[in-house]
Amino acid sequence: MSNVNSQPHSAQPLLSSVLEMVETVDGDFGAIDRLAQASSDLESLQLAIDRLCIHPQVKTAFANRLSLGAIDLLALQNLPDNTLGYFYAKHMLDNQLKPLQSPPAQNELQFLGSHITETHDLWHVITGSKTDILGEIKLESFYVAQLEVSRFWLALLTKNLLKSLLYDIESTDRCMGAISTGWLMGKKAKPLFGIDWDTLWETPIDDLRASLNISVEDVSKV
Amino acid sequence: MSNVNSQPHSAQPLLSSVLEMVETVDGDFGAIDRLAQASSDLESLQLAIDRLCIHPQVKTAFANRLSLGAIDLLALQNLPDNTLGYFYAKHMLDNQLKPLQSPPAQNELQFLGSHITETHDLWHVITGSKTDILGEIKLESFYVAQLEVSRFWLALLTKNLLKSLLYDIESTDRCMGAISTGWLMGKKAKPLFGIDWDTLWETPIDDLRASLNISVEDVSKV
Repeated sequence: MSNVNSQPHSAQPLLSSVLEMVETVDGDFGAIDRLAQASSDLESLQLAIDRLCIHPQVKTAFANRLSLGAIDLLALQNLPDNTLGYFYAKHMLDNQLKPLQSPPAQNELQFLGSHITETHDLWHVITGSKTDILGEIKLESFYVAQLEVSRFWLALLTKNLLKSLLYDIESTDRCMGAISTGWLMGKKAKPLFGIDWDTLWETPIDDLRASLNISVEDVSKV
Repeated sequence: MSNVNSQPHSAQPLLSSVLEMVETVDGDFGAIDRLAQASSDLESLQLAIDRLCIHPQVKTAFANRLSLGAIDLLALQNLPDNTLGYFYAKHMLDNQLKPLQSPPAQNELQFLGSHITETHDLWHVITGSKTDILGEIKLESFYVAQLEVSRFWLALLTKNLLKSLLYDIESTDRCMGAISTGWLMGKKAKPLFGIDWDTLWETPIDDLRASLNISVEDVSKV
């Protein structure tokens, strides 16, 4: 998501990257990087920034180049077991993940990418999205709802529908459930982009979700 | 939807048909027919039938080869203006559509296609889906929810997401709203497949929607 493509949007390279992803096992970071490159044209990124910046919280984050900084997972793990910090540390340690840090952003476009990269795992935690394929689809859909115009996240979502269509038709119901759940959650929630998570580690996760209008109940079970 | 492909499912021809549709204007019936052919493999159609037939109403419809028969739109138009018949006639006449009739089905696979073809416009009416692209997407998603395993309807949905991704990124929000609305509506509603609509023309449409658990309120506006 941190790659910026200086070329104007062109359908063919993006389609090729989506189709490469369809034929690739989930989690191939080389293919994801190439998709990020092909989907990150200047015009749609600038449009995403303009849309996001109608929210004062986002505007402030862009102005200050908000950064998470170094994170001590073992310290967070020792917080009370109802806090954001505890849930985040557990998520990272259980999944053998390390907090992703980005080099300081030099401009708005870089900040868009680096902030999303740094906070991605926090979005997993706060939305209750696991790291399996259904959790990823739900979260991709949540991003599409919150960012409004994001070729990268929409490309990932479309790739997953194509995979169901071509190779695993019986997964359709689960895939569509995750898409609808994530999208509705993302539309209903307050913006997550630009939240200063560093100030919230000790906040109970339920209080935080409530303040953000996030309900982790699965709407597909209505 | 009435074409049956005797070849086993093969990803490549289906992908080619989806990509042809992406490059084609909406409503190109030649391209839709080719997509129907490429998406209608025996295995997934039989699976769809098996899943549908857990509902007694569907089983009865298959056993009786239920058919709508000839429809007199001008007579239906004269029914009270709160009835299914009136709404259906108005939908057909306003959109300059003629009721689609299929030749008598010779087997279960043919009946699956012919029943869906005959009742397609009724599904538009009962779900409150217009014939513009967003209405079609909502209804495609409704079909995916109700039929559970349908390569044809999922292919149409995926094609529309690809179109937004490649050519009209600003339509993403509307497209995703239609997908989520249609899918949730389809999961919540009782099965529409196999309803004997001929007996329901004089029923108030609101009563009918309520009895089918269909609310035409747009869930994307939550």
